[in-house]
Amino acid sequence: MSIHKNITRILLSTVLLFNLSCYSQQMPKGEVVEFGLGIAEDATPALVSRILKANEKPISEIKFEKGTYHFYPDKGFEKFCYISNHGDLMVNTPFPIFNIENLTIDGQGSTFIFHGVMIPFLIDESKNISIKNVSIDWYQSFHSEGLIVANDEVNKTFDMQISDEYPYDIRNGELFFIKEYYQHTIGQSILFDPKRKAISFDTESYTNITTKSKSTTTNNLDNIKYKYEYDKRDVGYKNIGIENRVTVKELKPGLLRVYGHTKKMLPVGHILSMKGEQGLNRVSPAFSVKHTNGFNALNVNVHHAGGMGIIAENSANLILDNFNVTPSQGRMVSTTADATHFVGCRGKVVLKNCTFENQLDDASNIHGTYQKIVDVLDEYRIGVRMGHHQQKAFVIGQPNDNLGFVRLSNSFFAYQKATIKSIEYINNRYQIITLNEKLPADVLPGDLVENLDGYPNLLVQNCTIRNNRARGLLISNPVNTVIENNFFSTEMEAILIPVESGHWYESGNAANVVIRDNTFQDCQHGGKDRGVIRFDTDDDNKNIAFKNIEIVDNTFNQFDNLILEVTNLDGLVFKGNTITNTETFPRLHPQNPAFKVKRSKNIKFQNNIYKGKVKNEAVLETDETMSNLKFK
Amino acid sequence: MSIHKNITRILLSTVLLFNLSCYSQQMPKGEVVEFGLGIAEDATPALVSRILKANEKPISEIKFEKGTYHFYPDKGFEKFCYISNHGDLMVNTPFPIFNIENLTIDGQGSTFIFHGVMIPFLIDESKNISIKNVSIDWYQSFHSEGLIVANDEVNKTFDMQISDEYPYDIRNGELFFIKEYYQHTIGQSILFDPKRKAISFDTESYTNITTKSKSTTTNNLDNIKYKYEYDKRDVGYKNIGIENRVTVKELKPGLLRVYGHTKKMLPVGHILSMKGEQGLNRVSPAFSVKHTNGFNALNVNVHHAGGMGIIAENSANLILDNFNVTPSQGRMVSTTADATHFVGCRGKVVLKNCTFENQLDDASNIHGTYQKIVDVLDEYRIGVRMGHHQQKAFVIGQPNDNLGFVRLSNSFFAYQKATIKSIEYINNRYQIITLNEKLPADVLPGDLVENLDGYPNLLVQNCTIRNNRARGLLISNPVNTVIENNFFSTEMEAILIPVESGHWYESGNAANVVIRDNTFQDCQHGGKDRGVIRFDTDDDNKNIAFKNIEIVDNTFNQFDNLILEVTNLDGLVFKGNTITNTETFPRLHPQNPAFKVKRSKNIKFQNNIYKGKVKNEAVLETDETMSNLKFK
Repeated sequence: MSIHKNITRILLSTVLLFNLSCYSQQMPKGEVVEFGLGIAEDATPALVSRILKANEKPISEIKFEKGTYHFYPDKGFEKFCYISNHGDLMVNTPFPIFNIENLTIDGQGSTFIFHGVMIPFLIDESKNISIKNVSIDWYQSFHSEGLIVANDEVNKTFDMQISDEYPYDIRNGELFFIKEYYQHTIGQSILFDPKRKAISFDTESYTNITTKSKSTTTNNLDNIKYKYEYDKRDVGYKNIGIENRVTVKELKPGLLRVYGHTKKMLPVGHILSMKGEQGLNRVSPAFSVKHTNGFNALNVNVHHAGGMGIIAENSANLILDNFNVTPSQGRMVSTTADATHFVGCRGKVVLKNCTFENQLDDASNIHGTYQKIVDVLDEYRIGVRMGHHQQKAFVIGQPNDNLGFVRLSNSFFAYQKATIKSIEYINNRYQIITLNEKLPADVLPGDLVENLDGYPNLLVQNCTIRNNRARGLLISNPVNTVIENNFFSTEMEAILIPVESGHWYESGNAANVVIRDNTFQDCQHGGKDRGVIRFDTDDDNKNIAFKNIEIVDNTFNQFDNLILEVTNLDGLVFKGNTITNTETFPRLHPQNPAFKVKRSKNIKFQNNIYKGKVKNEAVLETDETMSNLKFK
Repeated sequence: MSIHKNITRILLSTVLLFNLSCYSQQMPKGEVVEFGLGIAEDATPALVSRILKANEKPISEIKFEKGTYHFYPDKGFEKFCYISNHGDLMVNTPFPIFNIENLTIDGQGSTFIFHGVMIPFLIDESKNISIKNVSIDWYQSFHSEGLIVANDEVNKTFDMQISDEYPYDIRNGELFFIKEYYQHTIGQSILFDPKRKAISFDTESYTNITTKSKSTTTNNLDNIKYKYEYDKRDVGYKNIGIENRVTVKELKPGLLRVYGHTKKMLPVGHILSMKGEQGLNRVSPAFSVKHTNGFNALNVNVHHAGGMGIIAENSANLILDNFNVTPSQGRMVSTTADATHFVGCRGKVVLKNCTFENQLDDASNIHGTYQKIVDVLDEYRIGVRMGHHQQKAFVIGQPNDNLGFVRLSNSFFAYQKATIKSIEYINNRYQIITLNEKLPADVLPGDLVENLDGYPNLLVQNCTIRNNRARGLLISNPVNTVIENNFFSTEMEAILIPVESGHWYESGNAANVVIRDNTFQDCQHGGKDRGVIRFDTDDDNKNIAFKNIEIVDNTFNQFDNLILEVTNLDGLVFKGNTITNTETFPRLHPQNPAFKVKRSKNIKFQNNIYKGKVKNEAVLETDETMSNLKFK
């Protein structure tokens, strides 16, 4: 008669334990709650029911009998989630970990299969949360894959075969893939080479599919005025005056012909991964961790997610050990966005013994957030605007954090500091920050603020990063970063160290970065003309952005010439590295040097072994600021 | 230097008063806060700032210097709003009236102009809130209007002229109207006759524009399985397998030709109102009132809203006096949905001395909510599902309310009652209700629950209801309803009294309804074959749905025959009414009687004067249940 009664009966005995860990003095008594396979058909309601009672009836551990569990959103616990670098949405979770301390979730080798838009682990305002011994997957993926079976360079079409796994419809020539509780268009796309199970060599010549073009007809759009700055890239605006360029026709069920693509026609035998429109296509990260001190993931496999493997914000002390993002079920793609991503995190951030492969964005991205001062309200208060639509609602810090005031035209570093007294949340684009000290006398609307305390001690160790779209590591961290003994084979930069302000509003000019004992194998094979390791500022700005960098004892086995690009950097030691040219792919940019250095100082090359194809002094290209620099 | 400092200076003196009203013993001291025209450029931040402090610094009254004030969403206070019969969205307001008691907002004759998606008055968990002497309008409307200037029945096209007020673009043949912070397609549409400034006669022959048709290509959609019931009409599903049928071409700027419409081509000189897709086009009601006891609106004009004039939910004692929904700025349309709407409201609901005209849905709709039992969890607990996507997150009642258990196949009335102990909100489609008493022994998944206490004493008096789309009053109220001395001229029924379960899940089988001294002028002119007053059940069900109805001393001046349709009713007195046939429009359904009665009992016609065109015994049509009934 009752679903819940059955579930309750099936639950294994619940054992009350005194927690005997080394923290036993601080830790509350908590139950060890064990779930058996009786709930496997939809484990969501049983988990929600028990976890929502955790405040009155604490839990120290949730254990699962080893097996496969399904999770549906229909009876999941709902929360509106603003998640950095994802879409913002009302979403359901089976694990509503809010205001919980000292909880371990042990899958004991189980696989959790999710259905539709949901966030498996939603962790907020918590402390010492551990997840271990579990694999996470989705029944239907948030992306779709098509095998290229023919192309026609004369008529500019290509054909793809869509397997039964990916139901679709075509509406006025536009292709939609339909899933349980979700749908997407072609949108963002990239090629995979099934022989290598990696991003196709030179995919940039073929993808993205050029799905959009300008509308031919608009009328009086200039009559629409906005009183305040607005974000033309946000979902509500970016489609104005834009229409579909590409049309799709079904030749027979499952076989589609694509017209209107303006790059090279796609090569037969490769697989096109399609994940829908930017702004709509990141709805289900596997882990969302916010305002949490102490998060451990051990022996966790994330086979898929409609977004990132883990996105952590405003949290501290996060350790991922043998946390692997890797595809399943014959799919080319694992997660549809970054494997891991850390915004405004502090304390320790550790990635060790992990594999990050086949995801559709970086293996990791570590940064803070710039917010723009739009109102100087009085001597202590500023109104700030969130610049990027994927940072909506981000709260920049907590009381007594050091806020830096930045004017990028003058310097990438803060011109003054002050501490936060309180933050009043008005809406997702506007907050009012009150300071303990007076504002800088010369503060101006347009200046940025960043949280100088919101960066971590970062360690990336013994990880394998390969076969994914985009970068390996994207580091904007002025504290300390050690990247050692990893393997990289990425389609763009293995390591990108940027400062930028105007687009992503991701803060953090990197300093104290050690990159040692890594192997870089044929990176940048997607086709972009960039280095394997690249320092970059997006402004034509001569100020120093990066300080105190060591790149030591690494091996670069690279099919193309360019190894390292340096700009706006003060203090680099590049020492003991070995560089070879492989024959894995043809060189795409044979005119390049191996090293490009500009607008920098205190750069040293020492004891490196260069066995690449660039001859003699062409190995190093510098601008006038470093004209005496030599490669050694 | 500071916007807020300027605003603060411009505020008129803030006067602390002892509140001297008759409730003075219970009421806290509160400030009278006066705002001057210095904040008129964007009044939002000053209001948000002060109202958010109301809990620590109570306000008894907010007064505005008479003038025109603009309100922008950019610095409005944000809340995620589930609003019955609207879209659900994260939205901003300048008036965040949450947990506030005894507050009066007096515009003193001011006009408030809103920009984009925002909710002017967002009132929740409050008590005794009064709004008076204010006109509400939007700078740009949430609908768009086009003047029909040509049509071609041979080639099946019509042309419309779009004024500069309505910027647009065309994307792959689909027309989008672009506004500040908003855009919409043709979507739901209806014709207005500018000579009458009312819905065009027989608009049903022309509209809606038939914008959609089935996609020709779908593949493997049947492979998508849902474990639980899902709502195919919800925004995320309803476009699957559907494409645009209508295409639009620009002949010259502002002049558009529309192809593919399958009803009659639109008549030249009429105005087509377009408001975009159902499910996306109700985002900004003027007033949202929830969980509030005591709401008064006096001398309020709502000239426009992207949704309803007022939507009240789970509230009590609401009085609208001289609350007028009426268009401005030469627009045909006032609000884009109902003028007023009350869901689960109790105590008194009064509409008096109001004008409701030119809105795109009913003048008022009063009902409760059915929720479907999907899980019987134990002897005291049920899991319920919200049936309709515009009822998401609706909480059916409060502790100790009487819940009725309904099985519509047996009866429209509850087969048993029990009182609510608590409700656990899981997500917008699923809640768990715990009862004080045991569940009915024979309760079954699929049964419905309704809140028997969530209906009001309703009075609609001295109101003018005209020129709008849809009904006048839609009444599903089993308590008491008095409708007296009103004027109706509506495009569909003047008064519709329904019971239905399967589509809208709007509960409430009407009883104790008095309809007296009203004038009904040429209603149902939109073209539907229905009575001016209609009782309706959407199921082919012989059970009694309506009880104790009086229709007395009204005047029906009707261009067509049909006056009254009755079904499933026990106890009707139709007495002292006068019926004439006007010549305002040609009759559309001359074969009809004046009265249709079926599946009913205890029906009396007395002392009516019939001067209409139907001859003799054809005036009244009955089924076999009432074969002896005579019209008198």
